[in-house]
Amino acid sequence: MKTPICDQYGIDFPLFAFSHCRDVVAAVTNAGGMGVFGGVAFTPDQLEQELAWIDSQVHGKPYGVDIIVPAKYEGKGEKLSKAALAERVPAEYREFVAELLAAHDIEPDARGPLGAPALSGDGAQKLLDVALKHPIALMANALGVPPDYMIEEGRERGIPVAALVGAREHAVKQVAAGVDLIVAQGTEAGGHCGEVSTLVLVPEVLEAIDGAVPVLAAGGIVTGRQMAACVAMGAAGAWTGSVWLTTEEAETAPYTVQKMLAATSRDTVRSAGRTGKPSRQLVSDWTDAWLPHQGGQPPLPLPLQGMISEPALRRIDKLAATGHAGAQKLATYWVGQGVGLMNKVKPAREVVLEFIEDYVAAAERLGGSLLD
Amino acid sequence: MKTPICDQYGIDFPLFAFSHCRDVVAAVTNAGGMGVFGGVAFTPDQLEQELAWIDSQVHGKPYGVDIIVPAKYEGKGEKLSKAALAERVPAEYREFVAELLAAHDIEPDARGPLGAPALSGDGAQKLLDVALKHPIALMANALGVPPDYMIEEGRERGIPVAALVGAREHAVKQVAAGVDLIVAQGTEAGGHCGEVSTLVLVPEVLEAIDGAVPVLAAGGIVTGRQMAACVAMGAAGAWTGSVWLTTEEAETAPYTVQKMLAATSRDTVRSAGRTGKPSRQLVSDWTDAWLPHQGGQPPLPLPLQGMISEPALRRIDKLAATGHAGAQKLATYWVGQGVGLMNKVKPAREVVLEFIEDYVAAAERLGGSLLD
Repeated sequence: MKTPICDQYGIDFPLFAFSHCRDVVAAVTNAGGMGVFGGVAFTPDQLEQELAWIDSQVHGKPYGVDIIVPAKYEGKGEKLSKAALAERVPAEYREFVAELLAAHDIEPDARGPLGAPALSGDGAQKLLDVALKHPIALMANALGVPPDYMIEEGRERGIPVAALVGAREHAVKQVAAGVDLIVAQGTEAGGHCGEVSTLVLVPEVLEAIDGAVPVLAAGGIVTGRQMAACVAMGAAGAWTGSVWLTTEEAETAPYTVQKMLAATSRDTVRSAGRTGKPSRQLVSDWTDAWLPHQGGQPPLPLPLQGMISEPALRRIDKLAATGHAGAQKLATYWVGQGVGLMNKVKPAREVVLEFIEDYVAAAERLGGSLLD
Repeated sequence: MKTPICDQYGIDFPLFAFSHCRDVVAAVTNAGGMGVFGGVAFTPDQLEQELAWIDSQVHGKPYGVDIIVPAKYEGKGEKLSKAALAERVPAEYREFVAELLAAHDIEPDARGPLGAPALSGDGAQKLLDVALKHPIALMANALGVPPDYMIEEGRERGIPVAALVGAREHAVKQVAAGVDLIVAQGTEAGGHCGEVSTLVLVPEVLEAIDGAVPVLAAGGIVTGRQMAACVAMGAAGAWTGSVWLTTEEAETAPYTVQKMLAATSRDTVRSAGRTGKPSRQLVSDWTDAWLPHQGGQPPLPLPLQGMISEPALRRIDKLAATGHAGAQKLATYWVGQGVGLMNKVKPAREVVLEFIEDYVAAAERLGGSLLD
């Protein structure tokens, strides 16, 4: 394929693959797509190591970096330390989690350490500084309008900036802020998402921004036929995440991989019970413990909810891998409704090649409907 | 287009249009699509009149009839009269509605008549008997597995039976029950719907039933490009509903049409506050009064909820049309997220022609992505 976006980014196939796993990023880039490394959970030193490794694998082929900087979070502008944020976590919430674990035969750990205040934005600029020392072809922000320094650095260095949006009006705002690439992400997406479906959001966003910048489709896309569907509607390509979680390279917790392979599209829920903002994840006893599940506990705001959920979920993942029944009931991870179509572990390169084949078949199918 | 489904149904373009308005049904059929008349709200005599009128307009061109027979409802199997069902409506619910209206400056009418127990299935067979006296080309059931008598009559007379499904496993069950056409309807659809998006559900259902019967895509589809997207994924065509509500022919309440034209895709909610089962409708003060809106009242089961909501909503529609501010805040109707793309009142025939044009452009766009 030689569409405008392929020319612009120097890729063969406009499949963008978001992953926290460097192996997936390198494999997709090497297969002709665009790997995008999710850097938010790393320290600057770790990010440096990961990107250096990717550089060594892709030999100049393009890849991107995604650093999440949310527009709103508890303590924004106050420059709060982890300790100061920890004081805002009500004791009853730590008790609630301890009781939930105890009810699943997991030793209560109410006084255990809280997690780091992820997604609080303070570390994002340092991560970006690290990323900019590498030959990155794209900077993305997955939550809200990118900060000014990201857009300024991008413009200065000629690196396009992408932003994920879940609503038409957010796309308009992002374009006005100077974003170069819009990812219109439907409610079926894993992770943070809005309420509008991909099939409606993509044409709505395209209409609203009227060609100002290219639009990638995201949300539920785990096959080439779905990607082709979105290109037929006018998208420049697809942004994907969930489908890489069950690849051979992925670092997804082993029991969670088994759950994903067995899950149908109805086994996900859009819940704020992990980060404090609504994000789509596998249904489990963990998500059932929080709203919007009936009778569930109301989650804390971002980043406080993550400070209580992440340490617990990491313990759960480790125990689930050992066969602990209670932990297996609690285990969950972000994934979109496309999980219903993810039924086999494959190498990331094979996923890309299957996407291409399936895309071409879909294009021929649609073309054939006119000729028959 | 001459795809297999066009040949089978004798249509030029595989666009199925569900409408309660006979004019829309006739206009779509006459424009080369397949109008499907929603007959559930009519008496047998009324249905006879409506279908006779359609016959006089379409001159033998194919149209279908949709009669909703839900699998589960309050009082099923008990053959309860309206009066007996009315006794199951708690007085506090009638008071709740009266207070909601009073809070919107609408005279309380707590002792006013309850509505008819719609969707209770008892009248469906009589409606079907009426429909079968007309040259219908399709019988559809929009909620659950069609009753045996529908499938038997269809088989005997060679009339295909269609069923709407919102989940992969329901499609498998429907095919096993003998349905000839599956409508895979995503969560973005207006009216009763499940939780899985169209972009995920369509490939999932296609994979599950493996070519046993054709699959139409539904949910959020209001343009030809979205229909083309679904055909690229393997759907045989599209089933639509919402887009006809803002046509010139439609009998949608006038103020609700204005609300629909102004709405974005985020102005709908999947709520049981109208029928007792989750159905997608325009957000209004009415939907805000019921769960899942935070703090809302839990709705009654089907058909009891409709017995309290329909009379109130009919009064609301009438008052809203006269400019009553409170009624305008309450006014709502079933519509899908595609409402965000419905911005102009048009004749139904023009909608069909635009669908065709937009479909062809989408097919060329997707084909072009391979050639560029």
